[in-house]
Amino acid sequence: MGPRSAAAFLLPTPAAALHIATRSTTRLVAHRRTALRSPLAGSRSGGSRARHVPATATMTTGAPAPTASARDAYEAVCERVREISRLEGVAGLLNWDEQTMMPEGSAAARGAQKAALAACVHDKQTDAALGAALEAAEAALSAAAASEPSPLNEYERASLRDARRSYDLTRRTSRELAARVASLQAEAHGVWVAARKANDWDAFAPMLERLVSTAKEAAVTSRPALADRPYDACIDMFERGMTAARLAEVFAALKPRLKALLDEVAAGTPPDVPACLDGGPEWDVERQAALSKAVATAMGFEFSKGRLDVAVHPFTGGPAPTDVRITTRYSTGNPWEGVSGTVHEVGHALYEQGRNATYVDLPVADPLSMACHESQSLLWEFCVGQSRAFHKFLTPLLHDHFPHTADVTPDVLHAARNRVAPGLIRVDADCLSYPGHIFVRFDIEQGLMDGSVAVADVPRVWAEKMREYVGVEVPDAASGCLQDVHWSGLAFGYFPSYTVGAMMAVQLLGAARQALPDLDAQVEKGEFVPLREWLRVNVHEVGSLYASLDELLVAVTGRPLDVDGYVEFLRAKYAPVYGLADK
Amino acid sequence: MGPRSAAAFLLPTPAAALHIATRSTTRLVAHRRTALRSPLAGSRSGGSRARHVPATATMTTGAPAPTASARDAYEAVCERVREISRLEGVAGLLNWDEQTMMPEGSAAARGAQKAALAACVHDKQTDAALGAALEAAEAALSAAAASEPSPLNEYERASLRDARRSYDLTRRTSRELAARVASLQAEAHGVWVAARKANDWDAFAPMLERLVSTAKEAAVTSRPALADRPYDACIDMFERGMTAARLAEVFAALKPRLKALLDEVAAGTPPDVPACLDGGPEWDVERQAALSKAVATAMGFEFSKGRLDVAVHPFTGGPAPTDVRITTRYSTGNPWEGVSGTVHEVGHALYEQGRNATYVDLPVADPLSMACHESQSLLWEFCVGQSRAFHKFLTPLLHDHFPHTADVTPDVLHAARNRVAPGLIRVDADCLSYPGHIFVRFDIEQGLMDGSVAVADVPRVWAEKMREYVGVEVPDAASGCLQDVHWSGLAFGYFPSYTVGAMMAVQLLGAARQALPDLDAQVEKGEFVPLREWLRVNVHEVGSLYASLDELLVAVTGRPLDVDGYVEFLRAKYAPVYGLADK
Repeated sequence: MGPRSAAAFLLPTPAAALHIATRSTTRLVAHRRTALRSPLAGSRSGGSRARHVPATATMTTGAPAPTASARDAYEAVCERVREISRLEGVAGLLNWDEQTMMPEGSAAARGAQKAALAACVHDKQTDAALGAALEAAEAALSAAAASEPSPLNEYERASLRDARRSYDLTRRTSRELAARVASLQAEAHGVWVAARKANDWDAFAPMLERLVSTAKEAAVTSRPALADRPYDACIDMFERGMTAARLAEVFAALKPRLKALLDEVAAGTPPDVPACLDGGPEWDVERQAALSKAVATAMGFEFSKGRLDVAVHPFTGGPAPTDVRITTRYSTGNPWEGVSGTVHEVGHALYEQGRNATYVDLPVADPLSMACHESQSLLWEFCVGQSRAFHKFLTPLLHDHFPHTADVTPDVLHAARNRVAPGLIRVDADCLSYPGHIFVRFDIEQGLMDGSVAVADVPRVWAEKMREYVGVEVPDAASGCLQDVHWSGLAFGYFPSYTVGAMMAVQLLGAARQALPDLDAQVEKGEFVPLREWLRVNVHEVGSLYASLDELLVAVTGRPLDVDGYVEFLRAKYAPVYGLADK
Repeated sequence: MGPRSAAAFLLPTPAAALHIATRSTTRLVAHRRTALRSPLAGSRSGGSRARHVPATATMTTGAPAPTASARDAYEAVCERVREISRLEGVAGLLNWDEQTMMPEGSAAARGAQKAALAACVHDKQTDAALGAALEAAEAALSAAAASEPSPLNEYERASLRDARRSYDLTRRTSRELAARVASLQAEAHGVWVAARKANDWDAFAPMLERLVSTAKEAAVTSRPALADRPYDACIDMFERGMTAARLAEVFAALKPRLKALLDEVAAGTPPDVPACLDGGPEWDVERQAALSKAVATAMGFEFSKGRLDVAVHPFTGGPAPTDVRITTRYSTGNPWEGVSGTVHEVGHALYEQGRNATYVDLPVADPLSMACHESQSLLWEFCVGQSRAFHKFLTPLLHDHFPHTADVTPDVLHAARNRVAPGLIRVDADCLSYPGHIFVRFDIEQGLMDGSVAVADVPRVWAEKMREYVGVEVPDAASGCLQDVHWSGLAFGYFPSYTVGAMMAVQLLGAARQALPDLDAQVEKGEFVPLREWLRVNVHEVGSLYASLDELLVAVTGRPLDVDGYVEFLRAKYAPVYGLADK
């Protein structure tokens, strides 16, 4: 449960991640990090609701004392954890409202209200009574270990496991440290905004020193087992169980193959893009919003359990799985941002709407991790939403909403939306050059954490790495190492999630394709619900049943994170667009 | 602090009143009942910020120990009370969102989240540590009583007084009783909706028995000093310090004079109303919304500290004085509801935006009472918004937004909007027949509380009283004693606030007129800010400084609630419209 731990650790409020997103100039995900979840126990693990219920039923009809007491003790934990989750849901609404509805004059009052709520949440998270309830449940479960069936099903045991993990993480962070972290984030954000605006690395560098040292301290304090591996402790906040070593191994395998593919594409024939697909006054934002809503509806986003609104910095948030709120933005100058952003955010939103309803407000219904959440948005945005099949669905809708595009065919649209253009800015990158941006940041973060890269050297290293991984020259700090909000938000270790998420997306889609042989034909017709349902059963409802992303991937696809499949997918994606030779 | 006490008593959540409004088919006020407030210490009492500050300054420079300790002890209370207020502000946002933004599928999750937040609030309200802090502050203040100046200014002393009052009220209500009250409200609401729909008194009667008995129990439990006067205890929830005896005295003086005025109007010449002012497709709702926004802006509603949205059941709510959210509704069939409703809600909203900012989140910045809040909406809706001067302002705006009204003059518009038509439904009543509806309900509530009216007799008594006070025949329960949401919400004692508020509005406007001799000329020109400022200084910022409405009225207008002035105002209002003789 990376998100949960990140929140528990970074700030005394669950809104840590949302905070980052609020300030982001990017489309950093801001799904709720902590609280609620939904549906029937995942069939993918062989578990089903029917299977779990008897376990409980047995106990109430004639099980031995330890069993009954394990259930009672478990329920006592659940009661406390649900209260916390509900209050975190309230915090989720405050954040959404702040970014979409709140009048400008109420920032101070809202800040005070969020702090009051965060204090309530923190008090409950660190309540010694919760610790005692956890101990009692663990003891009872341990005492009943010999009994068959287990007094708790696997989902219940996972909730207990993660409730313990969150409790320990939160207890280890003192109020003083939490306050210092929050205060540094607020200060650093202002310094970063000003430095980026002034294109002045030196204005930010001293702050980065403090940020690195505080990030280390906070990560290691909450994760004493990782005391000698501070970067692993940081990564664990977003992707639990993941390590820098494992990431380095995966990235090392990826780097040369992506480089080769980028070279191949650079030597290929770029697609012709008709001028009518560029921005302009024809791209009325109301019509863009209508198109986005039509796409979201087709994708299976349930508007009876969510909303779609406009925000300056798009995100997905909201207070509950039954109330998931997507935001997006539309401009006439960049007409594809609206629909692409909607597809991306709907991907996040479907994960949220699909939380396991049987375990609502319990840890096992939480999304597994940052990368897992990102996999859901990227599966829809890059894998489905940029496919040829999708553009057969989208083209007639586009003609309806924007008659000036009447001559554009699905293949032309598909090619136009799959251009590759390596550049300086991560958030503007196509999905082929995107991982290079992550490699740059991963290398530098590792160096900052282990001391092999000095803060003063970051601009130079950034430029070298960008040349190596992306093939571009960095002219200045503003378009280089000052472009991201993450470090000022103390989110060291967050970047790898983007690429891990993209790889996971490809891997999941491969498994889905095996289960849904007609997938392309369904997508062409705008029938997205079979895919949504497959994801719901195999990922969304599974929630945090497994303790890591690799475990989930093995259970769903038969293997851990897969480099080969990822590169093959990318090549197949761009081959028809750039006329690459068959391989 | 009627609202605060009502909330503290009715439900473990401050949202009690908002609950009622949510369910209301009427335009029951749903301003936030409990939390925040704003501005400089009221000049009206001779107090000023400058005057108060030295009192504090003195202490820090060389006052005796008891003084310094009184301030510390006071601050310790404030710290706790502010936390509660902030959480109540969050509850205010949840309520607003529920009625304007929340998708229909999230009612259950929202209910659980509201309950979790309410439990946090209740825990803090009844925390023994708050009791100890109050005792310490009271003891220190008492010990310092001989010192001059007092260690606390009058606003601070009022906050302490009301913090004590709220603490005692909340502590006296057990969790069991609070839960029973909440559960009965929920159950009764459903029964009432069904009974009203089916026009079936007998379906509601047994529930009313339970409601009366529970209302008595709850009111008396929280107010043991009123144990032998349960209706007074109920009234005290909304209008503190008010009694049935005082209301009976005021109403007794009003009744014959209103009756005489109604007769006079009935014998007068009703105004001609041009057909173009009736509903129809010309009354585009978007244009109505634009007109309402223009009016709200002119009235001085600060959009940087609030919003204006649409809701099925209009109310004013929101999380803070810097974030006051008005809702209204527009229909082509009833084009005047939108602008009238907006003027009414802006009246409430200005009170909220005008809370004393110096004492934000402290009890003294709370609105004084239900009637006082209602006085603010009615002052604007009935006294200002239905005046001849206002229609000189409104008419050109109306022509701009609705060209089909181009031939309507201010006087014709004024007359059209001042028709008197006694009818069956309270919420549709003109302001001359409105008090009659209140007399009916007051008499019946008194009877239900003292046992002189049996539940079974309510329909008969209702019909008799409506004949007597309003002059109409009641055909059935749906348009009679089943029309109001209040009883099912346990809001016995609430109705009188409407008429007391109307009287207070007239009395305040009289005082404002003395201070602002050019008021009519200002209103004609749409210059409402001088009146808003007068209200801000004399009412809004004064908040809960005084312990009762009569005390406030004496301070601002020189006399308690005034029957004569009220009747004179009404006669003067209708005389030109109905051609009444000079008196």
